[in-house]
Amino acid sequence: MTKKISIAIDAMGGDNSPDKTIEGLKFFLEKNSSKNDFILNLFGQENEINKKLKKYKINNNSINIFHTDSVVSNNETPLTAIKSSKNTSMWNCINHQVNGRSDISLSAGNTGVLLVISKMILKMMEGVSKPALAGLWPNKKGMNVVLDLGANIECSEQNLIDFAELGSALYKSLFINDKPKVSLLNIGSEEIKGTEVLKNTSKRLKMLSSDDNFIYQGYIEGNNIMDGNSNVIITDGFTGNVALKTAEGTAKFITENLKLSLTENLITKFSLLFSYFALKKFKNKLDPRKYNGAIFLGLNGPVVKSHGGIDSKGFFYSIDLCYKIVKGNLMSEIKKNLAHSKRV
Amino acid sequence: MTKKISIAIDAMGGDNSPDKTIEGLKFFLEKNSSKNDFILNLFGQENEINKKLKKYKINNNSINIFHTDSVVSNNETPLTAIKSSKNTSMWNCINHQVNGRSDISLSAGNTGVLLVISKMILKMMEGVSKPALAGLWPNKKGMNVVLDLGANIECSEQNLIDFAELGSALYKSLFINDKPKVSLLNIGSEEIKGTEVLKNTSKRLKMLSSDDNFIYQGYIEGNNIMDGNSNVIITDGFTGNVALKTAEGTAKFITENLKLSLTENLITKFSLLFSYFALKKFKNKLDPRKYNGAIFLGLNGPVVKSHGGIDSKGFFYSIDLCYKIVKGNLMSEIKKNLAHSKRV
Repeated sequence: MTKKISIAIDAMGGDNSPDKTIEGLKFFLEKNSSKNDFILNLFGQENEINKKLKKYKINNNSINIFHTDSVVSNNETPLTAIKSSKNTSMWNCINHQVNGRSDISLSAGNTGVLLVISKMILKMMEGVSKPALAGLWPNKKGMNVVLDLGANIECSEQNLIDFAELGSALYKSLFINDKPKVSLLNIGSEEIKGTEVLKNTSKRLKMLSSDDNFIYQGYIEGNNIMDGNSNVIITDGFTGNVALKTAEGTAKFITENLKLSLTENLITKFSLLFSYFALKKFKNKLDPRKYNGAIFLGLNGPVVKSHGGIDSKGFFYSIDLCYKIVKGNLMSEIKKNLAHSKRV
Repeated sequence: MTKKISIAIDAMGGDNSPDKTIEGLKFFLEKNSSKNDFILNLFGQENEINKKLKKYKINNNSINIFHTDSVVSNNETPLTAIKSSKNTSMWNCINHQVNGRSDISLSAGNTGVLLVISKMILKMMEGVSKPALAGLWPNKKGMNVVLDLGANIECSEQNLIDFAELGSALYKSLFINDKPKVSLLNIGSEEIKGTEVLKNTSKRLKMLSSDDNFIYQGYIEGNNIMDGNSNVIITDGFTGNVALKTAEGTAKFITENLKLSLTENLITKFSLLFSYFALKKFKNKLDPRKYNGAIFLGLNGPVVKSHGGIDSKGFFYSIDLCYKIVKGNLMSEIKKNLAHSKRV
């Protein structure tokens, strides 16, 4: 018997928890009802969790509950939270990875605190100096991995090279693609464009690319992120965060405008009868809940951060993401990549 | 009689010119047929320009043609172009602002060359060390001004403060708003977020804001750029360029997906009969041609760069932008703002 995939879930983090986390769990169990290869370790108020398990009629022997007294609040800074965090669902959820009791941790709680706690407990991987926050980004052909999305506002060449190795490993674990195509986000495609850090990183990525782990494709500009010609897009956390949020804002702006246009009078409302399923499919494809879950990479264990305000369906996608990441052997892919990178 | 608004136009720059530039001119003349307060100075091959004027039945005594032998090509680098540029339509178009023969210059040609030539000929304004590229960005309530969009990949505090003053003046000249609301692009809204440069810039903008020229609103995140609560958004050229292109890419991705969904079968195509006008209005509102024209600010004269690949309608919008900028007294607004900024 192979070892089961063990996922530690902070049941209390984020808005409307544990209701949404447990309903998300229900969706996950429904989707994977035929499988028997996972264990779900829930951290939080045992009574409340049990109430919600009852509410959603979940009775599954793959679930373990670990009682914790308190919850990290959204207003806490990393400093105040760490002092009083050892009894929180978040701390215990991360800590469960120590000694391999869980393979991955998931929380929808306070991002800053999660990052600091994760780093404290799991420690950086040997040879990696900064952890990165990676995200999934829809494109014409499927999904990209983009990193860093905000963990590091300033990055060195070595940080960006590490991100290329970490991001490629993540992509490979998720999509079992032999050679992820990696691009470096810049403001032009010519070699002379960008900062010195970007130019030097690009030169070094070219050298690494001749080896086995990924194909380095050079620079990519913001307007091509969603073309589907790159699998992994590398950038510093400042630029990545602005790009991600700008894309979110643009998508919201356009879909709200579309909605306004299509409901402005009786005739257009009537037309919705005929385009209902097409528009539903359109909305479904671009549903941000599907991309819910940013992944902290570079620690001795993966941590997934669900959006705090997301609903139970969105939380389900992040549980599913955890399952896929472990099944795809993320950590061993990362170790392979890093060993390779250090040879150059 | 007040002095007429005098616009210098590079008739040869960009794809499909001078056909598109002259057709754009036709749209401008049609829109402003009742006005008599402008002069349009065209630079390029006289024969070709005359052919197109004939083609579009333009016979207007507000047009002057200045013959030039050559055109800056898209493949040229600023260095090669400057050596051989004195006979080009672009050089002469910019040079016409010297001694006040034109109030503004417009070109759809090579951006890099245009920036270098503009700086060489017009020189920096006293007290401004770097020019910025400003653009118009649609939002829920109208339009933002965003700068820098790519002229400077690294910016100091003073550069960003200059951009706030330049951008506010531009907004005021375009929208005659007494106090533009200025925000600084960052990855969070809390004071502790971002680089040291951003934190220090924010402190100084707060002090300036207590004065008369603009209201400083603090940090803004990428997802709020299009909310319409800020009029002027300040950022370095690297971040601004990535944000702008990411927004373009996202808009394209969504509208292409929508188009695919709405034309996938007979029923959805049928629904288009009823939503045709609503969708047309939707498309019209988001038409990127309306936002065509980035403005170089910080030189002793404004230069507008039209997108090279835009069509005649898009070029029309950039001629119209030139007209509005001069009518709104951009240069004197800028001088007023800079005088204010130097007091702090």
